[in-house]
Amino acid sequence: MDLVLRDRVEPADVDAIKDILESTGFFFPDEVAVGQELASEHLAKGEASGYLFLFALQGGRPAAYTCYGPIPGTDGRFDIYWIAVKSELRGQGLGRRLLAETEARIRSLGARLVYAETSGREQYAPTRAFYERAGYKVAAVLPEFYRDGEDKVIYVKDLAARPGETERS
Amino acid sequence: MDLVLRDRVEPADVDAIKDILESTGFFFPDEVAVGQELASEHLAKGEASGYLFLFALQGGRPAAYTCYGPIPGTDGRFDIYWIAVKSELRGQGLGRRLLAETEARIRSLGARLVYAETSGREQYAPTRAFYERAGYKVAAVLPEFYRDGEDKVIYVKDLAARPGETERS
Repeated sequence: MDLVLRDRVEPADVDAIKDILESTGFFFPDEVAVGQELASEHLAKGEASGYLFLFALQGGRPAAYTCYGPIPGTDGRFDIYWIAVKSELRGQGLGRRLLAETEARIRSLGARLVYAETSGREQYAPTRAFYERAGYKVAAVLPEFYRDGEDKVIYVKDLAARPGETERS
Repeated sequence: MDLVLRDRVEPADVDAIKDILESTGFFFPDEVAVGQELASEHLAKGEASGYLFLFALQGGRPAAYTCYGPIPGTDGRFDIYWIAVKSELRGQGLGRRLLAETEARIRSLGARLVYAETSGREQYAPTRAFYERAGYKVAAVLPEFYRDGEDKVIYVKDLAARPGETERS
């Protein structure tokens, strides 16, 4: 599958993001709204919003995307706030390639560490496995962070580290 | 010292926050600007901004404050984003009392866990000691989070726990 990428945000992406997020069945409606808001923020303020995007297109329309940005108050640390792949395209390595392309952009911006946070719930086991295969390490687990019974897992990857047994690319 | 509290945000507080933060010598100019922006956000959007404030007044003017709020995406978890006491008033227990009053407000909003993040740098040893005396526990340390050589320390306090040897109030 060819990978067609776009990092410019277009007004129609706000709806495309909704379609992607809803297709996964992973997100509550208010979470979907937050995902859309970040794209609106970018449309209004550009890079000053702190939210950068990378879209993987299928037939000209976003089928997967990452939302990432510099962590305020840090020097050279980025967060991958969102990564999502349209449900019918999962399992084809699209997320892995999109993540690698996002990391390349983050590295080119001079950043060293990239963080990603996810839930410790069973439903998110594939998400955690995805990050671990991509060379992310568990930096911390915050018990019951999201709600009673739901931990937060914080992953980190050192982009300056030499690719080795922890990275497959 | 009597404690006069105010949780309503007034336009003049944006400048008062600058005075407090600058007096401490702890914050870079861009950090001071962020601290002020959060108050501006509250003035523009109210509680929907996600940022709540509690001011301790001296002669009618803020001499210390906390900025706190519900952590997006969580159920009943709050973050204390900022706590600062005017330099000339440090060492009188004002921060401790203000923190306790802030926690009482957070508890009354139905929240259970409250988080506070700070730097692992030597300069912040008094800040870390302050949280530890107030019953906060280290939930995680993220090495080199802020920049090379500067860790982030994440503290948490369970407001539902019975006050005991970990709390002095």
